[in-house]
Amino acid sequence: MIKASIVGATGYVGVELVRLLAQHPEVELVYLSSKSYEGQDIAALYPSLAGTIHKELVALDEAKFAAESDVVFTSLPHGASGEVIPRLYEAGTRVIDMSGDFRYDDVAVYEAWYGVKHTRPDLLDAAVYGLPELHREEIRTARLIGNPGCYTTCSILAAAPLLRKGLIDPGSLIIDAKSGVTGAGAKPSANSHFCEVDESFKAYNVARHRHTSEIEQELSKAAGREVLVSFTPHLAPFKRGIFATLYADLVPGAQEEAIRAAYEEAYRGEPFVTLYPAGSLPEVKHVTGSNRCAIGFVVDARVGRVVVCAALDNLLKGAAGQAVQNMNLLFGLAETTGLPLAALCP
Amino acid sequence: MIKASIVGATGYVGVELVRLLAQHPEVELVYLSSKSYEGQDIAALYPSLAGTIHKELVALDEAKFAAESDVVFTSLPHGASGEVIPRLYEAGTRVIDMSGDFRYDDVAVYEAWYGVKHTRPDLLDAAVYGLPELHREEIRTARLIGNPGCYTTCSILAAAPLLRKGLIDPGSLIIDAKSGVTGAGAKPSANSHFCEVDESFKAYNVARHRHTSEIEQELSKAAGREVLVSFTPHLAPFKRGIFATLYADLVPGAQEEAIRAAYEEAYRGEPFVTLYPAGSLPEVKHVTGSNRCAIGFVVDARVGRVVVCAALDNLLKGAAGQAVQNMNLLFGLAETTGLPLAALCP
Amino acid sequence: MIKASIVGATGYVGVELVRLLAQHPEVELVYLSSKSYEGQDIAALYPSLAGTIHKELVALDEAKFAAESDVVFTSLPHGASGEVIPRLYEAGTRVIDMSGDFRYDDVAVYEAWYGVKHTRPDLLDAAVYGLPELHREEIRTARLIGNPGCYTTCSILAAAPLLRKGLIDPGSLIIDAKSGVTGAGAKPSANSHFCEVDESFKAYNVARHRHTSEIEQELSKAAGREVLVSFTPHLAPFKRGIFATLYADLVPGAQEEAIRAAYEEAYRGEPFVTLYPAGSLPEVKHVTGSNRCAIGFVVDARVGRVVVCAALDNLLKGAAGQAVQNMNLLFGLAETTGLPLAALCP
Amino acid sequence: MIKASIVGATGYVGVELVRLLAQHPEVELVYLSSKSYEGQDIAALYPSLAGTIHKELVALDEAKFAAESDVVFTSLPHGASGEVIPRLYEAGTRVIDMSGDFRYDDVAVYEAWYGVKHTRPDLLDAAVYGLPELHREEIRTARLIGNPGCYTTCSILAAAPLLRKGLIDPGSLIIDAKSGVTGAGAKPSANSHFCEVDESFKAYNVARHRHTSEIEQELSKAAGREVLVSFTPHLAPFKRGIFATLYADLVPGAQEEAIRAAYEEAYRGEPFVTLYPAGSLPEVKHVTGSNRCAIGFVVDARVGRVVVCAALDNLLKGAAGQAVQNMNLLFGLAETTGLPLAALCP
Repeated sequence: MIKASIVGATGYVGVELVRLLAQHPEVELVYLSSKSYEGQDIAALYPSLAGTIHKELVALDEAKFAAESDVVFTSLPHGASGEVIPRLYEAGTRVIDMSGDFRYDDVAVYEAWYGVKHTRPDLLDAAVYGLPELHREEIRTARLIGNPGCYTTCSILAAAPLLRKGLIDPGSLIIDAKSGVTGAGAKPSANSHFCEVDESFKAYNVARHRHTSEIEQELSKAAGREVLVSFTPHLAPFKRGIFATLYADLVPGAQEEAIRAAYEEAYRGEPFVTLYPAGSLPEVKHVTGSNRCAIGFVVDARVGRVVVCAALDNLLKGAAGQAVQNMNLLFGLAETTGLPLAALCP
Repeated sequence: MIKASIVGATGYVGVELVRLLAQHPEVELVYLSSKSYEGQDIAALYPSLAGTIHKELVALDEAKFAAESDVVFTSLPHGASGEVIPRLYEAGTRVIDMSGDFRYDDVAVYEAWYGVKHTRPDLLDAAVYGLPELHREEIRTARLIGNPGCYTTCSILAAAPLLRKGLIDPGSLIIDAKSGVTGAGAKPSANSHFCEVDESFKAYNVARHRHTSEIEQELSKAAGREVLVSFTPHLAPFKRGIFATLYADLVPGAQEEAIRAAYEEAYRGEPFVTLYPAGSLPEVKHVTGSNRCAIGFVVDARVGRVVVCAALDNLLKGAAGQAVQNMNLLFGLAETTGLPLAALCP
Repeated sequence: MIKASIVGATGYVGVELVRLLAQHPEVELVYLSSKSYEGQDIAALYPSLAGTIHKELVALDEAKFAAESDVVFTSLPHGASGEVIPRLYEAGTRVIDMSGDFRYDDVAVYEAWYGVKHTRPDLLDAAVYGLPELHREEIRTARLIGNPGCYTTCSILAAAPLLRKGLIDPGSLIIDAKSGVTGAGAKPSANSHFCEVDESFKAYNVARHRHTSEIEQELSKAAGREVLVSFTPHLAPFKRGIFATLYADLVPGAQEEAIRAAYEEAYRGEPFVTLYPAGSLPEVKHVTGSNRCAIGFVVDARVGRVVVCAALDNLLKGAAGQAVQNMNLLFGLAETTGLPLAALCP
Repeated sequence: MIKASIVGATGYVGVELVRLLAQHPEVELVYLSSKSYEGQDIAALYPSLAGTIHKELVALDEAKFAAESDVVFTSLPHGASGEVIPRLYEAGTRVIDMSGDFRYDDVAVYEAWYGVKHTRPDLLDAAVYGLPELHREEIRTARLIGNPGCYTTCSILAAAPLLRKGLIDPGSLIIDAKSGVTGAGAKPSANSHFCEVDESFKAYNVARHRHTSEIEQELSKAAGREVLVSFTPHLAPFKRGIFATLYADLVPGAQEEAIRAAYEEAYRGEPFVTLYPAGSLPEVKHVTGSNRCAIGFVVDARVGRVVVCAALDNLLKGAAGQAVQNMNLLFGLAETTGLPLAALCP
């Protein structure tokens, strides 16, 4: 059994990790930490877990967590991660981090978009970008994984194959992304107040969302040249899910067959990427509760563009599910172990 | 033109008052107060008001507000109201208060259910319970009105006619009430977080909600004897609306015709109470955006009970709309002036 | 491996059965029937199942289904079931039926409430009411199971222990139930149109919902005398879930401890019933995606009543999950095999 | 008083017309037609109208409607309009049509995108495109108005000023639009089933939605050259509202000031267009229940694009409200008469 602990177990990503790991056939949960709810039972706080787990939330003790855990999942706000992770890492355990702190190749990009000094840029080299469909081999042997988030996973999986094959103009890429409200976290705020979100829809952080830089980093690797994108996040009135609509100009001669072939080559055999046949497109409900990312596309020959639609569950393939997928890779398990394929639908 | 001011203009009830009064043909808004947003334009804070009003939010100054206003609407948390209102009242203006502080005949009942000392019990005698369908004549000449809230208005309008006519056993009354989330107010909390409310449903404050006592006060008057009720509030995933389902044992011989006659006698000519014909029942969407309370019933002869369903928009007939209705009465206007009858549907 | 087939695999209950059985470690799905979608792949129709199953929907052939299946789940409208089931049953397979057709002891009650003639009253004796927490031993050896639905399971589990122990007045029981929209089925209608349901709430079939009779049948057994109830179904704007609020007069001397003891005696060791501690109550989100029924209560000594709140997922413990629980019993498996305990939350 | 009739009064646009016109101070409603509900009272069908109107729905009789009405609003599916309107028009009344049938300059474009033969192309010349902010003067004297719909109004108002001033590359325009479910109409279908829409999000008719052609027609006029756009409609889980996010490459030298100036020049004094200040953007809830279209933008200098966000209520400024605005123009009334400016918010 893999001994696993979770730092920050009571946020929405944290509790989703608890749910998955408590039912994972190869995992034993050791410690769950929480600043706000220390001493409480996680199942009293989240009665949704009744029958699955009872465990007291404890204060974080990096040395103890590292000594007794084969892997530690950290689900803290960025910056906070930057202090905890080096201690865990240097104490010798493996770390899968949910924050943006260890997802960057270039510390200058991180600092420019996050507006803070990175606490331990020396560790960036050791960290691996935890998107298995792009970096599987490096993940297997990593000790520190920067686990990508929801917008980035959805956008990168949707665009990378077309850039890799040179089928679209890298300068033309536009990503119009829509997120459910769990993406805003468990902390109450005006942005997540039911009456501010329900029956409404808005864009936010237009032209300045941090995930833009992470998407550009990975898509530039795929394209083999610098890629800048327009990325617009929106808030939509549902709990779980990301839906991304991508627009790109086709290079001369690029046609539907080549686009389909690019996706098939990229994702053949991938259990967690579902490519849709011509004539059908993903919907958020197709992936709610599943660790899959669903991708479909339409070629609009009239205007010379491709429109790609992609959907995933932000708490699963966009966070906790992907982290468990990474853990499975780290420990040589079948990648799908303990991860849901079917969505809860309707 | 009636000069009106609002104390606490930026909560959900406050802004609904602004919306109604800014468009009321006989009202001029003088002051809008806000602690949190002093100095801001109400229309910048609530862009929904664009084109309707521009007005700077100011700090509360009871003397100034009273001196320059024919009527002041106070929309503050209970207790806070208890300090502000006496100052306004004693400075000579009329006050319509949204809190529970001036809705009680008996200060002991208030103190038992609210768990606080009343600051000015001497003013309770001067205050009138602002439910026009029950207390119209006293309201016309009042200087201080305790404006009833959503659960109470809906429950009292639904039950009073049957108790007044002695058609139901007063000891048997059960009120199962469902509220939208605007009822919880604008302040973010775990209770109003989108992800905690959406796709869910819960009961809260079972057997101890404060409004129980207010319902009992008014229904006891209607029955001419003490009435105790089971009142259970629930939180439902919609923004506006109260839906109350009432159950009561019929007294021997009470039949559908007598029940219908009781409602018709009580509400004939009332513009803001809609009695449904046999075979149809209210739905929340029938009253969203309207100042009406919709009432329907079914006699279940098999078990000897009547089931009454009532619905209203908690921000209108359950708060701000009712307050404007009271203001119209105070100033001798047609009671429907500036108040919506049609709901926004779908 | 248990060979299982599903008749009516494309309704909401049908597809939930597919989802559960496709992932059940001891089941092999043999046939999925559909009238409307014959020839299509179930995973093309429900892309939420991608990665889990591919299977062509076929026309129903009772003889073939029975011959090749150890158990057949039937998910048809009532009446339709009444023709198909005898053929399956007489061909020798086990049948778990989702309709109301085989849930009644007394054909006269069925016919009075459903307004139709029962096609095969002779089979009612052979059928077992499939609520494992009440009838576990009879289920183990049954060949025909009438699988109870959502309102009934929730109401019966919440009330039976108190009636069995004589703690409440059987004549006083009121059940105010709220259902999500999946309960109305997959067929589009005005009742399930998004714009008619969203931001609204309504009661329907007041004093005449069929499930009343089924609740009364089972609660009368628990009480050892005839029980008539007021049962009011409501439609609420969420997809999955039943929330029932029950009201009953306490018999003299009945107190909180006795009530808690009654529930504990009834449900100790039951994996799919969660009793809440004093001071907390179920919410729909605690059970969404889980096969559990959650129950909590408050004693209101002031009025001499107990208020019980119960919640379950109507497609799981209220339909497909319960059917799989019954199947597990039929075949001697651990009752929780292949059934989710944790809810998908948030 | 203007005598007005409505053909197709019971669809969502029809009933919104009834709501507005029944409360319009200068209008008397003469006839409301309905095929499905002939003989019923509109207020019985839509109890949301209680207290506002009682009127029997009648069969359509073009001659009678035309003879007794100063203006007839037609709210029928396209094609159906094409037969009714000529009869009304030729009988001498004014017609404001909600369908796409009379919105086109070029019958070939209509026929290509709608896939049907136009029944009366000879009337296209007489028809005026009823977008007051672009065609106010022609509307004043029109006898037949093709009233634009929700996607088109929102997209055209958001893009036209920038194209008119040559600030963006006309070949680069991408419109990512999100619609509430009322846009799909009142008729139940799988697309509007609560359980298919709620907690989900999807794109539909990608690269082939009819409104594309209408947007292109009007934007080409604004640009003074042919404009082709990528237009992607999405379905979002709310009832009312359109939210459009537009992306366009800035021409060299185009900067924020020029863009703001273009919008200000276009919409200064327009009561129903709200331009947002720098740093704020529209949200759907800002316009729910209002006849306003809200527009804001962000210049993304990093990638050389402008991102424009626009929102309106599809049943008001996107349909019925705009039709009443057109009627006001036709009859020389103040353009805002009987039309709501404030949104119902929260």
